[in-house]
Amino acid sequence: MSAASVEDHAAHVRRLLDPLKTRTAESVLLSDALGRVAYADVASPVDLPLFRNSQMDGYAVHSSAITTVPVTLEVAGTVAAGATGPSAVQPGTSVKIMTGAPVPEGADTIVPVEHTTAGDEHSVTIEVSRQPGDYIREQGSDVIAGTTLIHAGQLLEPRHIAVLAAVGLSHTQVRSRPRVAVITTGAELVEAGSSLRLGQIFDSNGIALASHLRSNGAEVTGVHRSSDEPADFYRIVTAAAAESELVITSGGVSMGDFEVVKDVLLPLGGQFGPVRMQPGGPQGTAVVDGVPVLNFPGNPVSTVVSFLVFARDVLREAAGLPPVPTRVAKLAADVTSVAGKRQFLRGKLEGETVTLIAGAGSHLVAAMAWADVLVDVPVEVTEMTAGSEVTVVPL
Amino acid sequence: MSAASVEDHAAHVRRLLDPLKTRTAESVLLSDALGRVAYADVASPVDLPLFRNSQMDGYAVHSSAITTVPVTLEVAGTVAAGATGPSAVQPGTSVKIMTGAPVPEGADTIVPVEHTTAGDEHSVTIEVSRQPGDYIREQGSDVIAGTTLIHAGQLLEPRHIAVLAAVGLSHTQVRSRPRVAVITTGAELVEAGSSLRLGQIFDSNGIALASHLRSNGAEVTGVHRSSDEPADFYRIVTAAAAESELVITSGGVSMGDFEVVKDVLLPLGGQFGPVRMQPGGPQGTAVVDGVPVLNFPGNPVSTVVSFLVFARDVLREAAGLPPVPTRVAKLAADVTSVAGKRQFLRGKLEGETVTLIAGAGSHLVAAMAWADVLVDVPVEVTEMTAGSEVTVVPL
Repeated sequence: MSAASVEDHAAHVRRLLDPLKTRTAESVLLSDALGRVAYADVASPVDLPLFRNSQMDGYAVHSSAITTVPVTLEVAGTVAAGATGPSAVQPGTSVKIMTGAPVPEGADTIVPVEHTTAGDEHSVTIEVSRQPGDYIREQGSDVIAGTTLIHAGQLLEPRHIAVLAAVGLSHTQVRSRPRVAVITTGAELVEAGSSLRLGQIFDSNGIALASHLRSNGAEVTGVHRSSDEPADFYRIVTAAAAESELVITSGGVSMGDFEVVKDVLLPLGGQFGPVRMQPGGPQGTAVVDGVPVLNFPGNPVSTVVSFLVFARDVLREAAGLPPVPTRVAKLAADVTSVAGKRQFLRGKLEGETVTLIAGAGSHLVAAMAWADVLVDVPVEVTEMTAGSEVTVVPL
Repeated sequence: MSAASVEDHAAHVRRLLDPLKTRTAESVLLSDALGRVAYADVASPVDLPLFRNSQMDGYAVHSSAITTVPVTLEVAGTVAAGATGPSAVQPGTSVKIMTGAPVPEGADTIVPVEHTTAGDEHSVTIEVSRQPGDYIREQGSDVIAGTTLIHAGQLLEPRHIAVLAAVGLSHTQVRSRPRVAVITTGAELVEAGSSLRLGQIFDSNGIALASHLRSNGAEVTGVHRSSDEPADFYRIVTAAAAESELVITSGGVSMGDFEVVKDVLLPLGGQFGPVRMQPGGPQGTAVVDGVPVLNFPGNPVSTVVSFLVFARDVLREAAGLPPVPTRVAKLAADVTSVAGKRQFLRGKLEGETVTLIAGAGSHLVAAMAWADVLVDVPVEVTEMTAGSEVTVVPL
C-alpha cells in the first residue's frame, strides 16, 4: 500500500471528526463554569449598578445645602447597605449613608465621612464642599440591561464568572465537551502497580491519551483495555462508541500477526495503512455505529505524537479552544532525518533555540517527558544544519 | 490612622501567610495528577525499556546468518508482544518477532518484515542485510532505574503523567493545595437567582474569589455568607478557620457604622486601616485560632483587586506555581490618577499598547470582565501621557 502524506491523513481525520464541531449547550453552575467555553452571548438581565447608590460611607445631601462650608446639617437617619432607611432627603438636611446603600430621593451628592466632623447623632458638620454627582454611582452606569457581557466562544476565566454572578445569574450555558473514549490494546499490557513477567509492559497509553484529551477540552468517557481477542475488542469498541462521539485506540494497527484493531475494523470498512511520518507511521481510521474511530500505533511515543499531529487541534476546535500555535526555532545542532518521512523529533526550547532530546527512537518515553516541543522536520529533508530554522509544536 | 503603602501591606500579608509555604505531600492517582505540582523528585523504579525488545515486526536473527542476502532461514516460531515464545535463536535460524516482544537469546539483529519475503510458515527469505543491533531496543536505553524522571516542583502535564505510567507507577506524590475559605459579608447580599428588594445586590464576591483561588492552585474549603450580626460572623469565621489554612473575607472593613468584620476581629487583635491604593483602600488582617485571615473590602472590584495585589502570588508560591509575570506596556491615552494612591486601573492589552476600560470607579464589574490586565499607576503619579510606559499585571 502506498503511504499517505501527513497532510492527507490529517485532512482525512479532520473530515471524519467534522460532526464533533456541532456542539450542544450545557447549563452549568457558575462554580463549575471555570475553564469552560461560553455557548452563546450572555446579555445582562439587569442594570449594574442595580440602583443609584453611594460610593462612600458619608452623608447624602442636596448640593444646594453645602454651597458654603463648613455648614452643620440635621441628620434625618441612616441608610445602610441593603437595609431600609429614609427614602428621601428633605432640603437643607442630610441622611447618613453607607457604601452601596441606595441614595435617597432629593440627594444629588455624597459627602464622604472623611470630609465631615461628627456632631451628635442628629447633626453633622460638612467641612468640604462637593459637586452634584460626587460619589454617586448611577443606576446602569456600569452596564445597561441587555448589554452583552460575555461573547459566545469566550473561555470563562474568574473575571467572567464574577460578572455573571454580579448580574444575578446562578448558571450559564457552556459548550458541551467532545466525549471521547480510549481503548488500549496489546496482550503485553498490564496495569500500573502490577508485577511483570518478561515481555509485559505497563499500560501507559490509556492514561497518557486521557490526560492529553482532558488538557484539550475533551471529556473522557472511559479508558478501556482490550485483549488481542477480536471478540473482546469488538465488544469494547461498540460499547465505547455507544457512549462517545469519538473513540481513540492504541496498538494493533501495524504489520504483525496479531493486529486486533485492524483485524476487527478492516471488515467493518476501516482504512489502515502507513503514513509518511516517524514516529506514528501506521495509522487507521474507522466508523463504528456512526462514531468515528482513530487508530493510533501502540508505541507510547507514537501514540502521543499521533494524537498531537492528527487529533489535538481538531478536538480543540470542537471544544471551542484556539489551536496550539506553532513557532519557528533555530536548531542547536545538526539533524539528520529519514528520506520520505516527516519526522517529529522531541526537543527542548530555550529562547529561540531548540535542542533535540535523545534520538528519533519512538520508544523514548522519558525523552518525551523532558521535551517541551515536537520538532517538525519536513518529509523531503534528510539533513539540517545547526542554526537552521525549523517549525516546533508545543507539547 | 496613617495609611500604609501597598508595598508595606503586601509584605505584611506575605509574612502572615508564610506558614502556607510549608506543604505536605498528597498521594494521588495518576489520573488525578494533571495540573498538580510534584512534591519530590521521582526516580524511575525500573529500566525503560524494561527488557531488550524488537522495534519492528520482523525476524530475530544473529547477524552472522545474514551476511549474504538473499538467504532463506528456518523460522523456529513466533514471539508476540507479551506472549511466551522461543526464548533463543539457534545459529543459522530465525524467530518471527512482533514489535515490542522480547528479543530471544542469540539474536542481535531484527530484520523488518518489509525486508523479507515470506516462504511458508517455517521459512523466510531475508532480502536486505542488517547490522548487529538494528531495530533492537536495549534494556535501559531510554531510562536506567534510578534516573530522575520528574523533579520536585514540576507542574504535571500529560507528558509527565505518561512517563510515570510507563514506569509502572499508579500514584504520585503532589504538593498539597493551600486550603482557603471565603466569607462574604453584607446584609445587602442575596443569592444569585433570587429576586431583589431595593438596596439588595447579588453576592458575587464569593464565587469570584473562589474562582480566582482555584485558578491559582488553592483548594476552596467553603464559600460562606455572613449576616452583619457579630455572633453570626464570629461563628462562621471560627468554623472556617478550623478547616482552612487561610480565610479571606469581603466587606465589613471600612468606615461605616456596620462593619462586622472589623467589629469582630479588632478585639481579637486584627489590624484594620487604609492602604494607599485605589480600588481596595480599606484592608484588614487578623489571626483566628492560629489561622491567618485577610479582610478585603466588599466592593466587587475592590475585592478582586485586593486578591490580585496581595494574595495571588503568595498563594501561587505556596501552591508551587510561578508568579504571574508583570510586563511593561504603553498607554494608549493620557491617564490622570489620584495623588498619594497607587491606582490599579483596568485595561485591555493589544500588542504593546494598553487601553483603559472605563474609569477608575471601583464598582465597574463589567469593565473588570472585559479587561485583561490591571494597569499599575505608581502612588506618586497624578498624570501620565499617552505613550508612557506603565506596568501591567495580567488578570
